[in-house]
Amino acid sequence: MEQQDFKLDERLGRDTVKLADWPLSEVLLMNDSQYPWVILVPRCAGVSEIYELSEADQQLLLRESVFLGRLLMSVFSGDKLNVGALGNVVNQLHLHHVVRFESDIAWPGPVWGKHPVVQYSEEKLEEQVKLLRHVSEMRWD
Amino acid sequence: MEQQDFKLDERLGRDTVKLADWPLSEVLLMNDSQYPWVILVPRCAGVSEIYELSEADQQLLLRESVFLGRLLMSVFSGDKLNVGALGNVVNQLHLHHVVRFESDIAWPGPVWGKHPVVQYSEEKLEEQVKLLRHVSEMRWD
Repeated sequence: MEQQDFKLDERLGRDTVKLADWPLSEVLLMNDSQYPWVILVPRCAGVSEIYELSEADQQLLLRESVFLGRLLMSVFSGDKLNVGALGNVVNQLHLHHVVRFESDIAWPGPVWGKHPVVQYSEEKLEEQVKLLRHVSEMRWD
Repeated sequence: MEQQDFKLDERLGRDTVKLADWPLSEVLLMNDSQYPWVILVPRCAGVSEIYELSEADQQLLLRESVFLGRLLMSVFSGDKLNVGALGNVVNQLHLHHVVRFESDIAWPGPVWGKHPVVQYSEEKLEEQVKLLRHVSEMRWD
């Protein structure tokens, strides 16, 4: 499928705030104040599995994911990074990156389907977005 | 860290059956009859995050993961593949590949931390291992 046919899934759009456009993916902050949680969505229409991407795009996604993971762990000093492509609810391919702390509410379980989202306050959201926009605009590779 | 220092985490060893050795990773069947569930463990000592692998190993892991994911979805005709590196409990880097069905017990939630493991019967385990050893011995790239 062509990149120009890509349209972000409505639910992903509702639940997130856009941070940046990287070469392959939209970079989205999940509006859940319980964990630093950023999602990569490759701008490829009709794709729901990593293996459905072209080989070049798979490699690009890996590079973006590695860059993002390292960045998040360095900014938030997390105990562990959780990376996952699930897509049972939203079929459009998206890759979660969640910074985990031994003190967070879901630890050591996964964050998905565990605790209802707790949105950021307006002020905190603005702060988080500003911080992450700043770092995610760094040269990503 | 050197590959010769690698030792499979004890808990991973207990919960799984080895299917194959691929160029980078051990290929392990999770002994949980509720979902076709295969784990890749790169033979790299002291690594718990994908971004801690060398760039060459990151790419190899991606290729093994893509090959495995496609293979599992084709063998089991799943509705969705879940791929994830969590590691909140077992720190050694390991990459889950779980074939999901809309009819499975945890759908649409994640499988991790949801329902206690239900081990295969001896007979079923042997069958599953035989099937997966057969296909995972195919040329993986």
